[in-house]
Amino acid sequence: MAMATKIITFEKPNLRNPVFIEGLPGVGNVGRVAAGYLVEELKAKKFAELISSHFMPIVVIPQGSQVEMIKAEFFYWKAKEKNQNDLIIMIGDSQSADPEGHYEIVEEVLKFLKQFNVREIFALGGLNIGIPTEKPKVVGAVNDPSLEKKYKKYNIIFDTSLRVGSIVGAAGLFVGLAKYYNIPATCLLGETSGMPFLPDPKSAEAVIKVLSEILNLKIDISRLQERVKEMKEFMKRVETMQTQLLQPPTSQVSEKEKLTYIG
Amino acid sequence: MAMATKIITFEKPNLRNPVFIEGLPGVGNVGRVAAGYLVEELKAKKFAELISSHFMPIVVIPQGSQVEMIKAEFFYWKAKEKNQNDLIIMIGDSQSADPEGHYEIVEEVLKFLKQFNVREIFALGGLNIGIPTEKPKVVGAVNDPSLEKKYKKYNIIFDTSLRVGSIVGAAGLFVGLAKYYNIPATCLLGETSGMPFLPDPKSAEAVIKVLSEILNLKIDISRLQERVKEMKEFMKRVETMQTQLLQPPTSQVSEKEKLTYIG
Amino acid sequence: MAMATKIITFEKPNLRNPVFIEGLPGVGNVGRVAAGYLVEELKAKKFAELISSHFMPIVVIPQGSQVEMIKAEFFYWKAKEKNQNDLIIMIGDSQSADPEGHYEIVEEVLKFLKQFNVREIFALGGLNIGIPTEKPKVVGAVNDPSLEKKYKKYNIIFDTSLRVGSIVGAAGLFVGLAKYYNIPATCLLGETSGMPFLPDPKSAEAVIKVLSEILNLKIDISRLQERVKEMKEFMKRVETMQTQLLQPPTSQVSEKEKLTYIG
Amino acid sequence: MAMATKIITFEKPNLRNPVFIEGLPGVGNVGRVAAGYLVEELKAKKFAELISSHFMPIVVIPQGSQVEMIKAEFFYWKAKEKNQNDLIIMIGDSQSADPEGHYEIVEEVLKFLKQFNVREIFALGGLNIGIPTEKPKVVGAVNDPSLEKKYKKYNIIFDTSLRVGSIVGAAGLFVGLAKYYNIPATCLLGETSGMPFLPDPKSAEAVIKVLSEILNLKIDISRLQERVKEMKEFMKRVETMQTQLLQPPTSQVSEKEKLTYIG
Repeated sequence: MAMATKIITFEKPNLRNPVFIEGLPGVGNVGRVAAGYLVEELKAKKFAELISSHFMPIVVIPQGSQVEMIKAEFFYWKAKEKNQNDLIIMIGDSQSADPEGHYEIVEEVLKFLKQFNVREIFALGGLNIGIPTEKPKVVGAVNDPSLEKKYKKYNIIFDTSLRVGSIVGAAGLFVGLAKYYNIPATCLLGETSGMPFLPDPKSAEAVIKVLSEILNLKIDISRLQERVKEMKEFMKRVETMQTQLLQPPTSQVSEKEKLTYIG
Repeated sequence: MAMATKIITFEKPNLRNPVFIEGLPGVGNVGRVAAGYLVEELKAKKFAELISSHFMPIVVIPQGSQVEMIKAEFFYWKAKEKNQNDLIIMIGDSQSADPEGHYEIVEEVLKFLKQFNVREIFALGGLNIGIPTEKPKVVGAVNDPSLEKKYKKYNIIFDTSLRVGSIVGAAGLFVGLAKYYNIPATCLLGETSGMPFLPDPKSAEAVIKVLSEILNLKIDISRLQERVKEMKEFMKRVETMQTQLLQPPTSQVSEKEKLTYIG
Repeated sequence: MAMATKIITFEKPNLRNPVFIEGLPGVGNVGRVAAGYLVEELKAKKFAELISSHFMPIVVIPQGSQVEMIKAEFFYWKAKEKNQNDLIIMIGDSQSADPEGHYEIVEEVLKFLKQFNVREIFALGGLNIGIPTEKPKVVGAVNDPSLEKKYKKYNIIFDTSLRVGSIVGAAGLFVGLAKYYNIPATCLLGETSGMPFLPDPKSAEAVIKVLSEILNLKIDISRLQERVKEMKEFMKRVETMQTQLLQPPTSQVSEKEKLTYIG
Repeated sequence: MAMATKIITFEKPNLRNPVFIEGLPGVGNVGRVAAGYLVEELKAKKFAELISSHFMPIVVIPQGSQVEMIKAEFFYWKAKEKNQNDLIIMIGDSQSADPEGHYEIVEEVLKFLKQFNVREIFALGGLNIGIPTEKPKVVGAVNDPSLEKKYKKYNIIFDTSLRVGSIVGAAGLFVGLAKYYNIPATCLLGETSGMPFLPDPKSAEAVIKVLSEILNLKIDISRLQERVKEMKEFMKRVETMQTQLLQPPTSQVSEKEKLTYIG
């Protein structure tokens, strides 16, 4: 049978009503950068990986000679204080390379989360406003009206339909499909100018601030700029990878910085 | 496994030999507008939703901050008089975004309908005649010759092969596949000029009139123009969505009225 | 789950070591025309239909108001004389609309044939030689060397690799995959100039003659020209259908003779 | 159900901790040529074939009238000396014609290899350096850091990430996915100028030399040039086949040397 989507678990953490945070690459890579920063600042522990035949059929070599699958990774973090929740954070290298895959990947993750009795979902992403902004706002989208009421005291804009007609890909589907799993879910979208191939740390910062406040997390945002610089090399690879989606399927090659190919 | 197509049931209505009416978006959105008007005028009750990985991988935000999956919805209506049938009406946001999905979605619905012992199917759609018409006719296509005999006394044109060589998508497949489920099925196609992005209420009205007469429904058609105006905003979103089918799969973004994007 | 490919059986004929003959549309529609003519001249009886989500998601209306699925049809014929074999003949409206579907459809048919203990397969098709020819030859391709020996006394050319490097689609796969089912299989390809949209009766005639001789069938070839004329209307529809494969998937419409559309 | 990917076994060899070597067509056909030469020089015995609906839906006729499926073939070789390993070698006509197929094919092979208790994997391929080189080097990529240590004494370059950002297709996925099967795996990539349609025997020679040394194989490399010449005819067919991937799916024809077509 087709490989479809697989989640490989290295550890079965015992989590107390965890909250799930998702950040995959997208516009301005806002969600990926924000969730990735949380993983590092919280020193969250990796416990599972997701691979999928809906990702591009390539492996990446980020450094040395070590091959890495295109994958998403799951991390957990145990609450340090009473007003905090345990967390599961998913970050990834890519979204699905074909339309159907988005549904499958999100569904497999939701089934996986059900095992941990996840209580709430935050899907992070970027909202392209077409022009650069000094103070990016955070726009919310929810799968239940009660969530808007619950979170309107935070710095989130909820006149969402006036700003976006639709959300493409995993972040939107997490919120939409979670409803069928009875999990409240909120999409937090940081405004960005949406320059392709450029992660937008300011937008990510805005999202992190809102999310930290909601979840009572103490996140030192000062290292974000620096961390994004470190991420850039990997980001460039992710984007190189994504441009390959537009190449004909016969070309078993992958362009690289120095005009080298491989197959 | 792949998510494929799912029907989520909220209520199990007890229906007496129901007739099934289908209206998905298509040429002039005739079927969708006609079936949607029936749902509203009959105050039919929603009891199930269909989602599918064959729909586009997006969610829409029709108003406020509430996210909606691309979906089809099932409504039921209990007959008020002896000469009426109980009804199941399906309306939807979209047809399958890939060729195979049309078959899968129609098959899943037919299996679903079998549980309710559906006795007959009417699939509603539009027939593009290339020029505007003041008095659109209704053209019929059937999966059994007896249906032409049964319905020729109504205002339906049955020299169909002289007008259309083939029917693309769900409406045609419902009629074709229903034969293998031993369900008599008729496609009712309202003539339309087929202006893209514009629902054609006149054509929908012609279809509703024929169908109401067949099913002894008392439908006040006077609110149709007004209802179509209300539908327009949603329709525009559906069409925005449909244009995204032509974009490359890497672009995780969704254009909107104000040149904003999201991902 | 996806609908995939289904064979619906109306009758379970009791056949004695039948031979299977396949003719689907292709270059010059040679295979389809030849197998279709055998069905008519032998008055073979239809006993099953194959439908598939790998066919285009459309229905056709060949005449009147009656909708027909895109399908392949199975006919059987019982031998009249001792030196004849019972036959199963498959003719169809279309080949798979996507690459993977060819494999699936052929495999499902081979599984189906196994139930009838099919002893040998003849897959019929056309071979484009680029120029018109008055006396088209028949070129053979086999899945076992013994078949070349067995059939070299007939009017078949077996220096095939000098003429064709590969065979695309169902006819070739029937011969190739049958090997894994231990069924000897021969592809008979009639030379044709390969004018698109035009069935080539001369090439079909050449194939029928060779096949009739091998199978000791008494086929009166005189009605072929006339029959092809009758087929032309349907053929035109099949071709209209096939051109739709090149249209974007969003267009839920089907062009027709009189510039009418439907959806 | 869809045919997906099948491995047909002709013999169940009893192998002692075998090493698996993979060579499919790719840049410069380096992997295919190198693995194919090993099969011939070692007189390895064929014991299984892999077919897949992810290959192109065609059959090839390499010589005479005999039809061949697009397939991969498995050969085994029993060690002759104490310092050698039993081998399983896979060579093939093609990689997957669609992105998802790469994952499926590699996964099916890995499951198959698990039955034989395969201890290590070498995936062979080419690395396009854009310019011709007299002395092609061999670049390595591994799924575990210990492999770099183990093999750094051989003539392999391991500053891989400076040369290639990603590996597309089966060779890379074998190394990446093998990790989830707990099989150490190394990709050996011979530098090549990557002229399309031309196998690069010099690059293949470099790969064979490194691999022979690692596995203590005594391979006489002198016949490689001559063997590649013999392969060329078949290679041309493979490439003809691959160019068909870019043709629209409706064309049921296959171009060939003499402008003949078939269908």
